[in-house]
Amino acid sequence: MSTSLHRVVIVGGGFAGLNAAQKFKGAPVEVTLIDKRNFHLFQPLLYQVATGALSPANIAAPLRAVLKKQRNCRVLLGDVSGVDLPNKQVLIGEERIGFDSLIVAAGAGNFYFGHPEWEKHAPGLKTIEEATDIRRRVLTAFEAAERFSNPAARARLLTFVIVGGGPTGVEMAGAISELARHTLRQNFRNFDPTSARILLVEGNERVLPPFPEKLSTRATQVLWKMGVEVRTSSHVKDIQADHVLIERNGNVERIDTNTVMWAAGVRASPLGKLIADATGATLDRGGRVVVEPDLSIAGHPNLFVVGDLAAAKFPDGKPLPGVAPVAMQQGKYVANVIIRRLEGNTPAEPFRYWDKGSMATIGRNAAVVDLYWFRFSGWFAWMTWLFVHIMYLVHFQNRLLVLMQWFWNYVTRNRAARLITGEEAVRTLTGSPPNEVSATSDPPHAKTAASC
Amino acid sequence: MSTSLHRVVIVGGGFAGLNAAQKFKGAPVEVTLIDKRNFHLFQPLLYQVATGALSPANIAAPLRAVLKKQRNCRVLLGDVSGVDLPNKQVLIGEERIGFDSLIVAAGAGNFYFGHPEWEKHAPGLKTIEEATDIRRRVLTAFEAAERFSNPAARARLLTFVIVGGGPTGVEMAGAISELARHTLRQNFRNFDPTSARILLVEGNERVLPPFPEKLSTRATQVLWKMGVEVRTSSHVKDIQADHVLIERNGNVERIDTNTVMWAAGVRASPLGKLIADATGATLDRGGRVVVEPDLSIAGHPNLFVVGDLAAAKFPDGKPLPGVAPVAMQQGKYVANVIIRRLEGNTPAEPFRYWDKGSMATIGRNAAVVDLYWFRFSGWFAWMTWLFVHIMYLVHFQNRLLVLMQWFWNYVTRNRAARLITGEEAVRTLTGSPPNEVSATSDPPHAKTAASC
Repeated sequence: MSTSLHRVVIVGGGFAGLNAAQKFKGAPVEVTLIDKRNFHLFQPLLYQVATGALSPANIAAPLRAVLKKQRNCRVLLGDVSGVDLPNKQVLIGEERIGFDSLIVAAGAGNFYFGHPEWEKHAPGLKTIEEATDIRRRVLTAFEAAERFSNPAARARLLTFVIVGGGPTGVEMAGAISELARHTLRQNFRNFDPTSARILLVEGNERVLPPFPEKLSTRATQVLWKMGVEVRTSSHVKDIQADHVLIERNGNVERIDTNTVMWAAGVRASPLGKLIADATGATLDRGGRVVVEPDLSIAGHPNLFVVGDLAAAKFPDGKPLPGVAPVAMQQGKYVANVIIRRLEGNTPAEPFRYWDKGSMATIGRNAAVVDLYWFRFSGWFAWMTWLFVHIMYLVHFQNRLLVLMQWFWNYVTRNRAARLITGEEAVRTLTGSPPNEVSATSDPPHAKTAASC
Repeated sequence: MSTSLHRVVIVGGGFAGLNAAQKFKGAPVEVTLIDKRNFHLFQPLLYQVATGALSPANIAAPLRAVLKKQRNCRVLLGDVSGVDLPNKQVLIGEERIGFDSLIVAAGAGNFYFGHPEWEKHAPGLKTIEEATDIRRRVLTAFEAAERFSNPAARARLLTFVIVGGGPTGVEMAGAISELARHTLRQNFRNFDPTSARILLVEGNERVLPPFPEKLSTRATQVLWKMGVEVRTSSHVKDIQADHVLIERNGNVERIDTNTVMWAAGVRASPLGKLIADATGATLDRGGRVVVEPDLSIAGHPNLFVVGDLAAAKFPDGKPLPGVAPVAMQQGKYVANVIIRRLEGNTPAEPFRYWDKGSMATIGRNAAVVDLYWFRFSGWFAWMTWLFVHIMYLVHFQNRLLVLMQWFWNYVTRNRAARLITGEEAVRTLTGSPPNEVSATSDPPHAKTAASC
């Protein structure tokens, strides 16, 4: 690298940022990819980590390994704390990284609709830490149910509430049903894990709202068959350590539960606001930065926002969804815009999302696929889902490992990665019942006789 | 199960406890296995998790999955807080579990030779959390070296000290050398990871002290060839966030480092003292409980201590080593003692360890194996080591996964599981340099020009 080359800084190594970086391969630019984490995470499979089917490393690829051979790209681990536009520098704490073009792809986090206090009771599914936290909570609930024989406490421990009926919520509900009804069968001696109650709460009148109604209906049928109570047109009013309040048509129901998962709202990274403050750009309701047709910021042709952080639109004005294909295409597109400029070519056409379709899996042999020209569900949809997800994993090794574990899980119905880990796992069991239990008022019952 | 059956409680699901539980398969007893964790951990491969070669789930097997089909055994997740011998009950907090025979197999933790304050700077290798903590520290040191150009800070970041030259320390040193010299090659743009300095500190006059001298010498040669500075007859005098003090023949040397790993001392679980206080049994220097030839406690024929918690001896009076084969054989032996008693058979012969040999791996194609009648090192020893470790993994799926990843790592020299994870990983990078760096007095240098 020589400092006379055009310097591109990319903030975020998710689908958008990584695809942008890779698109620059061989181009006469100097790329710096900055991420808080040292790996690219395949978020669509995070729910499989949360339910013990896969290990975190199976769906993560170290950024340095991915970009090792791309000599015009360096990776920096760091949390971007600001952007100095006049001096064209990105700030990581005290450190300053100069750029000629900046691509911000910082993604989105969970959003609790103005109730940040719900987060501690209802983790979302955005990071590996959140996934292993959910895994710990779900598995600890079953473990506690084995130890405590009080019927009310046990019923509460065996009630799982998933908030949000989009693809993540549906996949999560299906996976917990599999866990309870198949994986954990015969694992306990004092209760039957198939008695677990799983609720999927969706504010809309049907799950998978962006899908055609027929596929939503199909998904709902499969979920009910798997024992999932699907609660549509229902809104969460409160989340506490031992219950949630769900409102439907003005009626509020209390559901006793120790385990709530959040798959409802996302909000763009705080970097969006930083960019907006510096450039005068508009933020949409989800905190996403409104961008020009070429994904740059109005008046700042060298500053691009892509992926979940960008409020880009379909030609008809509908907002683009926050999904991996949009982010990947945007990342590549923006890299291309920059390369064309450097080559003195005519400006690129406005960004246009090539929507190949959407899909969601519900469980074993069950998925829905919408290719627009063709809609289908069932086993073939499931195979399609499996194939597409395997193919988009970044590392060939991960493809093999995931394929092998899926095959194994399919045949044995086991989920070998169901480990209760983390500091919290060690703390909760040090001399006392798990804290989800002690947070309730039921005293744990002494129990000396085995009951099977 | 009926409550009239003989009730066996096993505390700890490590090698000793799990083997005891499995030996009871089909026996007319009611087994309760209690562990703090929901999985059996294959500790000998933990250093591969710490160096990004394997995922935690690859070397862990959920206890419930392992014991699912053994109908006379239940598993309880809990931390045993006491034993009520007069009432024959084990205490988990408020809960009481009755027993007729008790097998305590609670293992050992790290021991810092009277310096518990060293622990926060030098994690050991006993749990998955410690392994992922070491992984985070080692990888974060390389990441920080990429960001900070100050030569002294970078040299300190790239210095790794492993305390303890037993098998774990040797394996760890070898793995970090592989990581620095092969896996991370070409991964950085601002420094050469092969410049990393790796020190292995051993108090004895040679590494792998229990092995024959020839194999120790061979291991030392291989380590030096791999770039590991082997410091024998050396003692750690102090460990701080940014340096260690090492004493040799009265001379104290200061080594600047941010990354220290502890593989030196172990101390038996505090349950040992609890047992000793209740029974009058003696503890040895490492806190291990002195046991009778049949591994019971003198005067308490129904109370057994096995594995790393037991101070058992070879017939010549030498203490048995704290290794997996001893624990496995003791677990099975004690289960057999109990079954024989219930069957009214003559008492079992005293426990005798069948020592098949010892082995340690150093790195790619290099290991030492001591079968007593045959001693060898090099490629064939390495293959032997691989084979034995694969075979002792509890789950067939894990055997396949580990084999596949080893093959892959061997061919590509990659270590795909090198993720920086955990709450600490997120905290350290929020707006400031990693805390190992900020703990030092060197200000991070602003650096805007890429240097490769």
